[in-house]
Amino acid sequence: MSRYKFLIEYEGTRYRGWQPQKNVRTVAGELQRCIHEVCGAAPFEFQGSGRTDAGVHALGQTAHLEISTMLAPEILRMKLNDLLPADIVILDIAKADPRFHARHHAVSRSYLYQISRRRTALGKRFVWWVKDPLNVRRMDEAAALFTGMHDFRSFTEDDPEDKSTKVQVEELRLAEAGDLILVRMRGSHFVWKMVRRVVGILAEVGRGTMTVETVGELLRHQSAEPARFTAPPSGLFLERVYYPGDSILTHLQPVLHITHG
Amino acid sequence: MSRYKFLIEYEGTRYRGWQPQKNVRTVAGELQRCIHEVCGAAPFEFQGSGRTDAGVHALGQTAHLEISTMLAPEILRMKLNDLLPADIVILDIAKADPRFHARHHAVSRSYLYQISRRRTALGKRFVWWVKDPLNVRRMDEAAALFTGMHDFRSFTEDDPEDKSTKVQVEELRLAEAGDLILVRMRGSHFVWKMVRRVVGILAEVGRGTMTVETVGELLRHQSAEPARFTAPPSGLFLERVYYPGDSILTHLQPVLHITHG
Repeated sequence: MSRYKFLIEYEGTRYRGWQPQKNVRTVAGELQRCIHEVCGAAPFEFQGSGRTDAGVHALGQTAHLEISTMLAPEILRMKLNDLLPADIVILDIAKADPRFHARHHAVSRSYLYQISRRRTALGKRFVWWVKDPLNVRRMDEAAALFTGMHDFRSFTEDDPEDKSTKVQVEELRLAEAGDLILVRMRGSHFVWKMVRRVVGILAEVGRGTMTVETVGELLRHQSAEPARFTAPPSGLFLERVYYPGDSILTHLQPVLHITHG
Repeated sequence: MSRYKFLIEYEGTRYRGWQPQKNVRTVAGELQRCIHEVCGAAPFEFQGSGRTDAGVHALGQTAHLEISTMLAPEILRMKLNDLLPADIVILDIAKADPRFHARHHAVSRSYLYQISRRRTALGKRFVWWVKDPLNVRRMDEAAALFTGMHDFRSFTEDDPEDKSTKVQVEELRLAEAGDLILVRMRGSHFVWKMVRRVVGILAEVGRGTMTVETVGELLRHQSAEPARFTAPPSGLFLERVYYPGDSILTHLQPVLHITHG
């Protein structure tokens, strides 16, 4: 038995999220089906770094796999990619330490969110189109409030009794790329729907329908307000999962250029 | 009656090309249907700058429309976009000179082609994935042969008796963007399948299965060879249509970033 680390890219549009479920199409479900086809029916452990919701994409999801195979990792990768649907691609497979755990050993994760200021014929599946004008300077001001350690209980549907809603946000950065507004959020861990609700609140601030002061209140006191502004999954990408020693991605670029010339 | 100039973006995947045809879904067919819905059943002339084939995309197709409407161009644009399928977007509508003709007055066109060196989960519809390693330096050498005035009869299915196959190529440039190889081709006009066959031949040179000298021969003597190497439509974008006085696009960027970090 050997342990392998997988790096996986997918478009989430057609899937009910990452996590395998009975009778529905999921990303990890498709991967497991193909692994069985290549490596035989023996049970194995296939563990992702975390879940992504229905419709959310990944540029670099990670997972580990404990399996017995004679195939070299690169051959295994090619065989699996040949079987996988076109919207799931294994970018890398590498032999890992037998104790490596894709979820427990991740030290931080980063997500990228793409807001589009205009309708896009090529990128509908990869953006949230916000029709109202957005003031990015004020969104920046609000974003600054999120960095550091905060309790995100107002921004999640997770139960704070079950799982800590205190999260260390290492980066919450906005950048403009033509008609796109990019939001990167990097943190120790994420609670359910957190990124989409933070983006939804930032958009409210950008529209001028919520003040920066109100955002501060939402972080200090429990509120059901953010749930009303959950941004759609289409704009969200799990960008990278960091392990000890990995260097931090500094530049922020769109997945899709929608401004030509 | 007034004349309008349209600027249109579309993903060609679901369409049998630009040109309206009976009983099949085409881009101009969809536009005409929506124009009828907004402006009434009166006949009108809707003329594109040129055709694009099934599966080919456009970042900036142009067309002109001669119609009688009380709507301001921006209102007309919004009403049409609300009716159009999500993969066709009108970027701009402007009042034009009554003599303006989208095809006759175009002085040059540029196309962008995206070759991917790897499988991509997010961009399959927008690239041609070439599995073999490609030598870009040699592709550059071959590309240099195409600029200037050449007879492209070996690169088209158009009949040279019907239409001149002599084309002035103003630019044929390659650029690398991570795992993508971009090809831009700008010329006075284009003959049928020309861009896809030039790209197909460049890929053969990149693979090492065709020499740069052979490419020179194909440009000097008629040959059926290029037809065997027609690159798929998925990687091709009509990038821009130039009219007198328009400034030339100088930077070359991918539509989709497939390299993250």
